[in-house]
Amino acid sequence: MGEPAGIGGEIALKAWLRRGEAIPVFAAVDDPERLAALAAQLGLAVPVREIAAAKDAAEIFGAALPVLAQKLPVPAVPGRPSAATAATVIGAIERAARLALSGEAAAIVTNPIQKKPLYDAGFAHPGHTEFLGALAELEAPPAMMLAAEELRVVPVTIHRPLAEVPKILTTAEILRIGKITAVALRRDFGVTRPRLAVAGLNPHAGESGSMGDEDETIVAPAVDALRDAGIDATGPLPADTMFHAAARARYDAALCMYHDQALIPIKTLAFDRAVNVTLGLPFIRTSPDHGTALDIAGTGVASPESLIAALKMAAAMAACRRAANGLA
Amino acid sequence: MGEPAGIGGEIALKAWLRRGEAIPVFAAVDDPERLAALAAQLGLAVPVREIAAAKDAAEIFGAALPVLAQKLPVPAVPGRPSAATAATVIGAIERAARLALSGEAAAIVTNPIQKKPLYDAGFAHPGHTEFLGALAELEAPPAMMLAAEELRVVPVTIHRPLAEVPKILTTAEILRIGKITAVALRRDFGVTRPRLAVAGLNPHAGESGSMGDEDETIVAPAVDALRDAGIDATGPLPADTMFHAAARARYDAALCMYHDQALIPIKTLAFDRAVNVTLGLPFIRTSPDHGTALDIAGTGVASPESLIAALKMAAAMAACRRAANGLA
Repeated sequence: MGEPAGIGGEIALKAWLRRGEAIPVFAAVDDPERLAALAAQLGLAVPVREIAAAKDAAEIFGAALPVLAQKLPVPAVPGRPSAATAATVIGAIERAARLALSGEAAAIVTNPIQKKPLYDAGFAHPGHTEFLGALAELEAPPAMMLAAEELRVVPVTIHRPLAEVPKILTTAEILRIGKITAVALRRDFGVTRPRLAVAGLNPHAGESGSMGDEDETIVAPAVDALRDAGIDATGPLPADTMFHAAARARYDAALCMYHDQALIPIKTLAFDRAVNVTLGLPFIRTSPDHGTALDIAGTGVASPESLIAALKMAAAMAACRRAANGLA
Repeated sequence: MGEPAGIGGEIALKAWLRRGEAIPVFAAVDDPERLAALAAQLGLAVPVREIAAAKDAAEIFGAALPVLAQKLPVPAVPGRPSAATAATVIGAIERAARLALSGEAAAIVTNPIQKKPLYDAGFAHPGHTEFLGALAELEAPPAMMLAAEELRVVPVTIHRPLAEVPKILTTAEILRIGKITAVALRRDFGVTRPRLAVAGLNPHAGESGSMGDEDETIVAPAVDALRDAGIDATGPLPADTMFHAAARARYDAALCMYHDQALIPIKTLAFDRAVNVTLGLPFIRTSPDHGTALDIAGTGVASPESLIAALKMAAAMAACRRAANGLA
């Protein structure tokens, strides 16, 4: 569902309309009445059908959008998030996660949420990812990968002020995120021997300490530790020369030290095709790489491209994982 | 000349061989004997001819590489820079700058230098750019632009450790670099009404202060000041969504807060086509965007592409500047 005042419902309807384009079977965890009303209002020819269990989705997917009902207590108003719908939004996330944990769903794809109404209603997690980590009873936070055909990037620090990055970056965290990334590349992306490129923190990766010593004292030891752990890691590399085509051919994922170092290259190369993938959960979770877009919610102009990319990537990852587990 | 133990001579010879490809007339400020010997050694069919004055270059350029002689006291050994050649290297830079200052040359293109032998010989400037600034008697340092067909970026801070960037970034410096950039876009790039996109320092440009306050306290006031100065500036913008094609169409240059924020996108898009342009000098100066490549010097494998791009961009800028000055 995601935030029902946002574009989540609209792009789910539009993604179903594109079902001929190799889109995997999916069910919405959402309010079937509001989805049917939204389809009518936007003139989208999407029959909406409530299903009792996730396993019923495949049978009806060709004819209607299957919905696992999560009913809203009040109507959602496009562009106007409300704390009154927060419990339903949270419930939808939890239900999807339980379906994935039990194996009834092969993966979950989460539409964007609006954090403020959830916080106002008492939601105690910083965001989606942390909530999923808690539901999965993880001890350490999951990692975030942005993935597109051209490039996969994993930032070691994420939504932190730039000034904090050099202070909070540790060898242990780079190592932890690197290991999570290598496991995911093997299990979910079909990369038999993952190659990690590790970006330096400073310009030119510090140029032997002449522009900051963190690359020598923090990043390089993490690269050594990754290699000691049997992972093909290279670095610290000058970040500016890591992302052209010839450089990208030399690795399967780039481990970046901070948000923009990771997100600039992938959004430069694949702006509306990048998918957000959570690594380190026991189940597969992807999400479109955009927000709730409250400003255009309800107007019918939202693009389903990123959600479609997220659905396809989740399905591809699930197929890899099944193959890795020796299943058909 | 640049560092004579590096690839500068080789790529100058190779650039001359490509003279049929709309390469502007240029003269090397170099040692004619060493260039002739290098051409012979590498099997490059380049007649080298000493000229007495820059104005003689055009006449002979079709038949030979014109050289303004700057003789080395000892032979240059590929891959082995020496303090013994430092005075000649420095002299070549100074001579080129004087030719540009006097108007005898329309622009200068500098091959990369090796700093250590120059420092060992007493060179007192941090690098090429600062030396040129001193020769031009500038009061404040020039700015660096990386330019390619797809994108122009100007970092406000350059070769500084990442941890220092938030400490040294000031509204005044962003404003100063923004003004230099706007002047250069008008005069040298033919942009009548330059549009500057100003990147935020923090992820999502700080998201209203929730991820660092520098975007509100330092960057936003600089954008306001640029607008007050009549410059069409926008920002602070989230850096990750500034560099895809649709975003790039909205501005003529991106002002970035630090090295990798500027260099990651341009090297991702135009790895070996980006040209380094110095802004704020009284004359036009470009340089290839690579180093001395000591490891391959003398082997004949160096690519002249970036030097050729630098030569062409210098010529295009010179044509713009002549047009802006009402000259033919």
